[in-house]
Amino acid sequence: MSGRAGRDEGAERIARVRARMDDLDVDALLLSVGPDLPYLLGYEAMPLERLTMLVLAKRGDARLVVPRLEAPRVTARPQLFELVAWDETDDPVAIVAGIVGRGVARAAIGDHTWARFVLELQRALPGTTFVPASVVTAPIRMVKDAGEIAALQRAAEAVDVIAAEMRTRPFAGRTELDVHRELVERMLALGHERANFAIVAAAEHAASPHHEPSAERVIRDGDIVLCDFGGTMRGYCSDITRMFHVGEPHAEVRDVYDVLAQAQDAAARRVIAAAGYGDSFVHRVGHGIGTEAHEDPYMVAGNSLPLVPGHVFSVEPGIYFPGRYGMRLEDIVVATIDGPLRLNNAPRDLAVVS
Amino acid sequence: MSGRAGRDEGAERIARVRARMDDLDVDALLLSVGPDLPYLLGYEAMPLERLTMLVLAKRGDARLVVPRLEAPRVTARPQLFELVAWDETDDPVAIVAGIVGRGVARAAIGDHTWARFVLELQRALPGTTFVPASVVTAPIRMVKDAGEIAALQRAAEAVDVIAAEMRTRPFAGRTELDVHRELVERMLALGHERANFAIVAAAEHAASPHHEPSAERVIRDGDIVLCDFGGTMRGYCSDITRMFHVGEPHAEVRDVYDVLAQAQDAAARRVIAAAGYGDSFVHRVGHGIGTEAHEDPYMVAGNSLPLVPGHVFSVEPGIYFPGRYGMRLEDIVVATIDGPLRLNNAPRDLAVVS
Repeated sequence: MSGRAGRDEGAERIARVRARMDDLDVDALLLSVGPDLPYLLGYEAMPLERLTMLVLAKRGDARLVVPRLEAPRVTARPQLFELVAWDETDDPVAIVAGIVGRGVARAAIGDHTWARFVLELQRALPGTTFVPASVVTAPIRMVKDAGEIAALQRAAEAVDVIAAEMRTRPFAGRTELDVHRELVERMLALGHERANFAIVAAAEHAASPHHEPSAERVIRDGDIVLCDFGGTMRGYCSDITRMFHVGEPHAEVRDVYDVLAQAQDAAARRVIAAAGYGDSFVHRVGHGIGTEAHEDPYMVAGNSLPLVPGHVFSVEPGIYFPGRYGMRLEDIVVATIDGPLRLNNAPRDLAVVS
Repeated sequence: MSGRAGRDEGAERIARVRARMDDLDVDALLLSVGPDLPYLLGYEAMPLERLTMLVLAKRGDARLVVPRLEAPRVTARPQLFELVAWDETDDPVAIVAGIVGRGVARAAIGDHTWARFVLELQRALPGTTFVPASVVTAPIRMVKDAGEIAALQRAAEAVDVIAAEMRTRPFAGRTELDVHRELVERMLALGHERANFAIVAAAEHAASPHHEPSAERVIRDGDIVLCDFGGTMRGYCSDITRMFHVGEPHAEVRDVYDVLAQAQDAAARRVIAAAGYGDSFVHRVGHGIGTEAHEDPYMVAGNSLPLVPGHVFSVEPGIYFPGRYGMRLEDIVVATIDGPLRLNNAPRDLAVVS
């Protein structure tokens, strides 16, 4: 399949979702903003105050409730769902509750649905127990099919090109924000419809894993610079981290980088701990990726979910020295029956830049 | 104040929020993703699976619960809040529930909080009734102070420059997506940290108020083109709509445009209805704007909230002919004691472009 559910994938995915609803005794699935709706219908709700919600009962017709002014964006798919447009002075929650019906014992609601709509729906459906939709959808969405993996591969190739290009670009004298903007522009130019993030962190800032690019911090000679960026391309996400060093790095930085690169190449956490940097690795080793930048499966201690072919996730060990510098290296990997397959192939060595 | 809450504004805003919590019998305010948290603390939660949540009790210390790897992004403000960092294998919901305490009768939770966290918190705090945080925060946030209006003015000026520039740019032969990308790049280049949207809709597409720019639709001679774009600049949003016509427009288009421009200039809905186009105006006349692209107050039938000085909102009448074309004109306006003050001043006539 292509980036999002087409007609046939949609019907097949809805059938799998309904089978799981049966298993879990979930009577209705309610999907608004977030990734589950486009996964099933190829349609993404706008993250705005006007409610969009798919009401998918275990049996019978699915209904997509949308604001009238967004109805023209919806491609009619009479086999998949019926469109219910609401007007500016209607109460969309009452419309959804009316479709669900008061007799429903358990409803699953999209994980990212806004709290205000959850609370309003709970009030409108006092006899219904709500559970997060991911209990239904996550095990299905987690296993990517060949078309999804191809889409993730294309997105990975686009950011690989950018990561390779950045090795020949100047860093010294530019602010972090300036480099951030270049990354955003390049992602859009190379086919991403959306840049999701572009962390650019010089030296001491790179010790903060989720640093926000600064308009003040000018990159200078001797800085190590972390670039972690990704976006959405035809519905599927990219995510890559590469490290750049302005001028020749000190031996210590080279040594730490070697540990990091080895860690990424092998089982990440074990290698880092064995090298004595365990306390400087503050986050999990990776996250699933698909239509969401972060999704199941999470590579974190305590998650005993076995990897199966079709799982796609990041491997991104990091080493952070607060106040001094930090580094991280990240690729997207697919679990296949033949073992791990990397989707990113940009050079992985520490790039020396000017 | 500047774009976001600094130390002093933060303390003063928290005091106002607590006074309202007292009035409404809300014992705890729980803020995660969305605009309320940066309004109070100057800190924005990342919209990711790791929970960030401010727990603000009516009295006593406020606590900001954040993932450990994001803790370095938080500027310490011991007068305002205490930082509680959680580790990758901790349960952040249990930590929040522990701080709130089981005796709390009513908690207000941020309107955009993800459903999965709402449901988990409800399970962890079975004796607590949850209400949306906007009942506490919206009336406070709705009235902008001088610093906020200045920030909105700066953002408006940036998109004014772009709207004026576009009058000299070529449209014919380009796809909607290509023009969309130009708008995004210009917003970032002119100081927006984030482009929130850039609708580019040619002729029949302009009849869909929230059209998504197409990679296939090539703009051609005779097309009317709607450009509606906005972003976030130092925490505050811009939003402007201007109309472009490739080559000289027909008399009909000119006539409809004149009605639209008059409508925007006067009380929008009344003028449009009087001109006989009432059925073609499918959406409300405008929305509040601030740190959110759409926020209270909404200019919609049934909203009897009186405007007061400091309210900032869009005035954006539109006229849509499905299958043929549509048009909309939008400016941001501030209610002041001297009457309405427009923040946008880009030319408002129908621009004839090549």
